[in-house]
Amino acid sequence: MTQILGHNYIGGQRSAAGQLNLQSIDASTGEALPFDFFQATPEEVDAAAKAAAAAYPTYRSLSAERRAQFLDAIADELDALGDDFVAVVCRETALPAARIQGERGRTSGQMRLFAKVLRRGDFYGVRIDQALPERKPLPRPDLRQYRIGLGPVAVFGASNFPLAFSTAGGDTASALAAGCPVVFKAHSGHMATAERVADAIIRAAEKTGMPAGVFNMIYGGGVGEALVKHPAIQGVGFTGSLKGGRALCDMAAARAQPIPVFAEMSSINPVIVLPQALQARAESVARDLTASVVQGCGQFCTNPGLVIGIRSPQFSAFVQQVAGFIGDQPAQTMLNAGTLSSYGKGLKKLLAHPGIEHLAGQAQQGNQAQPQLFKADVSLLIKGDEVLQEEVFGPTTVFVEVADQAQLSAALNGLHGQLTATIIGEPADFAQFAELTPLLEQKVGRILLNGYPTGVEVCDSMVHGGPYPATSDARGTSVGTLAIDRFLRPVCFQNYPDSLLPDALKNGNPLRIQRLVDGQPSREAI
Amino acid sequence: MTQILGHNYIGGQRSAAGQLNLQSIDASTGEALPFDFFQATPEEVDAAAKAAAAAYPTYRSLSAERRAQFLDAIADELDALGDDFVAVVCRETALPAARIQGERGRTSGQMRLFAKVLRRGDFYGVRIDQALPERKPLPRPDLRQYRIGLGPVAVFGASNFPLAFSTAGGDTASALAAGCPVVFKAHSGHMATAERVADAIIRAAEKTGMPAGVFNMIYGGGVGEALVKHPAIQGVGFTGSLKGGRALCDMAAARAQPIPVFAEMSSINPVIVLPQALQARAESVARDLTASVVQGCGQFCTNPGLVIGIRSPQFSAFVQQVAGFIGDQPAQTMLNAGTLSSYGKGLKKLLAHPGIEHLAGQAQQGNQAQPQLFKADVSLLIKGDEVLQEEVFGPTTVFVEVADQAQLSAALNGLHGQLTATIIGEPADFAQFAELTPLLEQKVGRILLNGYPTGVEVCDSMVHGGPYPATSDARGTSVGTLAIDRFLRPVCFQNYPDSLLPDALKNGNPLRIQRLVDGQPSREAI
Repeated sequence: MTQILGHNYIGGQRSAAGQLNLQSIDASTGEALPFDFFQATPEEVDAAAKAAAAAYPTYRSLSAERRAQFLDAIADELDALGDDFVAVVCRETALPAARIQGERGRTSGQMRLFAKVLRRGDFYGVRIDQALPERKPLPRPDLRQYRIGLGPVAVFGASNFPLAFSTAGGDTASALAAGCPVVFKAHSGHMATAERVADAIIRAAEKTGMPAGVFNMIYGGGVGEALVKHPAIQGVGFTGSLKGGRALCDMAAARAQPIPVFAEMSSINPVIVLPQALQARAESVARDLTASVVQGCGQFCTNPGLVIGIRSPQFSAFVQQVAGFIGDQPAQTMLNAGTLSSYGKGLKKLLAHPGIEHLAGQAQQGNQAQPQLFKADVSLLIKGDEVLQEEVFGPTTVFVEVADQAQLSAALNGLHGQLTATIIGEPADFAQFAELTPLLEQKVGRILLNGYPTGVEVCDSMVHGGPYPATSDARGTSVGTLAIDRFLRPVCFQNYPDSLLPDALKNGNPLRIQRLVDGQPSREAI
Repeated sequence: MTQILGHNYIGGQRSAAGQLNLQSIDASTGEALPFDFFQATPEEVDAAAKAAAAAYPTYRSLSAERRAQFLDAIADELDALGDDFVAVVCRETALPAARIQGERGRTSGQMRLFAKVLRRGDFYGVRIDQALPERKPLPRPDLRQYRIGLGPVAVFGASNFPLAFSTAGGDTASALAAGCPVVFKAHSGHMATAERVADAIIRAAEKTGMPAGVFNMIYGGGVGEALVKHPAIQGVGFTGSLKGGRALCDMAAARAQPIPVFAEMSSINPVIVLPQALQARAESVARDLTASVVQGCGQFCTNPGLVIGIRSPQFSAFVQQVAGFIGDQPAQTMLNAGTLSSYGKGLKKLLAHPGIEHLAGQAQQGNQAQPQLFKADVSLLIKGDEVLQEEVFGPTTVFVEVADQAQLSAALNGLHGQLTATIIGEPADFAQFAELTPLLEQKVGRILLNGYPTGVEVCDSMVHGGPYPATSDARGTSVGTLAIDRFLRPVCFQNYPDSLLPDALKNGNPLRIQRLVDGQPSREAI
């Protein structure tokens, strides 16, 4: 097995100046793995942020093609991580090997997709208004706009996607694509995994001649606070809990120079099951919905945590069907002891609430998570009871029965911001419930018809975002190519001679990218 | 003269529930104008925000063409505001009639430009990834993304552009274009102007059948805080002081649901005068620079507040020339007594600083602003002395002499974020000082060669933004069509049948807009 050093990654070097050693845990057995990780000292956090800042002027000025080569090289290195790597990830997360192999491909594919975006060039957002020297009363100067990377970005990975939302995940990929060096805070739940992935990134950086400091990684609890407060850091990507994400937002907003934080936090992902769909295919909906609830032990940001239907004998029967299916699902091992403990606490809150009834699931105990089903009174939604707004991360969902179509809208209006909402219906349902799409649009980042929210496609049109508290900024997405926009800002050149302009803005359009020229999209030279 | 009621504008009605009356002041004489304005009560602030929220679902769902018609109608109403209107603005601001006439045209032109953007359709940011049902291991669902308005937006206008950055200014225009109803906080410096403009907007809204509440306006000091904290408000546009803007940012960040604030605040707009330019044309540079410093009594966000050159006999002579020109400039009346008082305080700070020398200008006294010239030691910039980072709003500028090319970079590195930076040079200068453009790119939103930063073109490629403290979010601009992006967020539709999709996303592309389809820009139907 490749050696795990456990040292921090700072400016292309490894550093272990601290005294505090951390250990990674086998998620299935609870045993410590035989690796030591060195918590970054305040000086090391400072050095990592400064290394990123030092790399920024060079890195952001590289051609998009050079950055694309770097991302492609990372993808190749990720694909080359072999069975021993998969075994380490499985031990740290209790996720099955097939899932990790799939996630590895998703993560390398994500890097290659951002390489494509760099070559496509639309991320530059080029806009050109040519001079109008004869305009009255005043001439118009030549004005040209493109976008550059914000500066060094701090990234906090997620426990539940040790590859795709972590060290080399979507936030890192989009920041690196944007021209922003990254300081990654390794997740305590999979530090050996993080080290192997960081090694892959560093190898790719060396092979493609990137500046030292383009990627840095630090270990440790509490080091993230110093990182977000560091003056060199210009943006933050985060995936995790509402509490953790909000704390980072508050720190970032209180800085002498506030910086943007893109935190993907808490979502209960309502699923609305409409009457005609229940008439037509209640059993298959019950089966597929259950599969979505328990998939990966329910450890997905888009796990359906709330199912809403209109009172009817069909809906009652449907609830019973789901209860039966949920009751048949086996317990599963969660990502780590902290996740299991949070799941237990979340279930206790639901069980203790007088407006919530437990419908199915073995009593939660031991070291695995038991799938659970609950039913809540609709008044909790309409009155905005916090218990239904909080994500319970794990294999559980809550059914809500509404009296009629009007109460359905009232209940949905009571929801906070969400990553997704799903409508299960037949054409007749869509005609009858036409108000749902515009209503849900105001609440979520993605609306699905007749699908399930788990399984987030990495593509141009994906939105993995949404109004607070799903994320801290509804204008961003953390999956899909639009994620690069979070880390870019526009710059305008006025009256620059062609020779001094960046390639993206030159008259000849040497990058052959699409540009908005005098209000018209164009790939032509000027 | 049209009647000035002084009542708040709430949901298409006028409201004067409060007891506190405010008066507008003649900026030249200090006399109160014969109008009473009613400070909005907390209930009226709440009602205004709720009126905007009530209008939002209807307004955001209108076709882009309908919203464009509304903006065009506002433009027509603005153009129709006649001489009596111009007279009111002149009395409230002491700005000359020709300037107000020009600004009226700029403001209506801005509305029409956003109408064009709506018809062009690129603001939708449409991205379509078609289904791949045969893909292995998993099929890809059909995914389509467009952008919708964030929700009701609070706008705070600027004193220095009573039309173009105020009631119907760029923030209002871009928010309305995005589909966001507006609650405008009338500026205390030009409340009668604000009323006349609000009337114009309301007339346009009625003529084009917009929902009541699409535009609301409230009067009063301190009402802005309640507005920014109101749960219905989803975004904020602001132009004004660093102190005021930062206070709004802090309030917005501390809300239960934090919201984005786009505050354009403080910039000293460095001008770098390079050696060959001084050789070639020192006198014309001195003349044009002086004109830019004193234009409009220096009351522009892009006023050049810092001029940097390299020590040489030519630079010393240039400083003397500018001192001569500045000394010849007449005093001017400022926008209001508060602005004059701030100017006086700013000058006192400069005069009291041991590292700063006064070069030209009559002693500041009386009720007009005297143009001033100062020279500061370069160490103040390099050490980051706050006195040089703070904008002194008015007709004054500070010269800094650096020892050599290396010290020029060091001095520029010491600058905080700026709206603009300007380089005055000849081709030989640009070759010798090639490091300046990438350095300044990291500091500012717009870099000008051989121009002057005052005069901000309203077009697609303008960036009137920049790193903190120039603005609160370097990713935005408050002038130019990109300003609409601040108030939009993406939404994704998964697996929607064509008939249920918004027009922008339908297969047939009925809006005939450009879209990114399977990674390729296209105007074709699918």
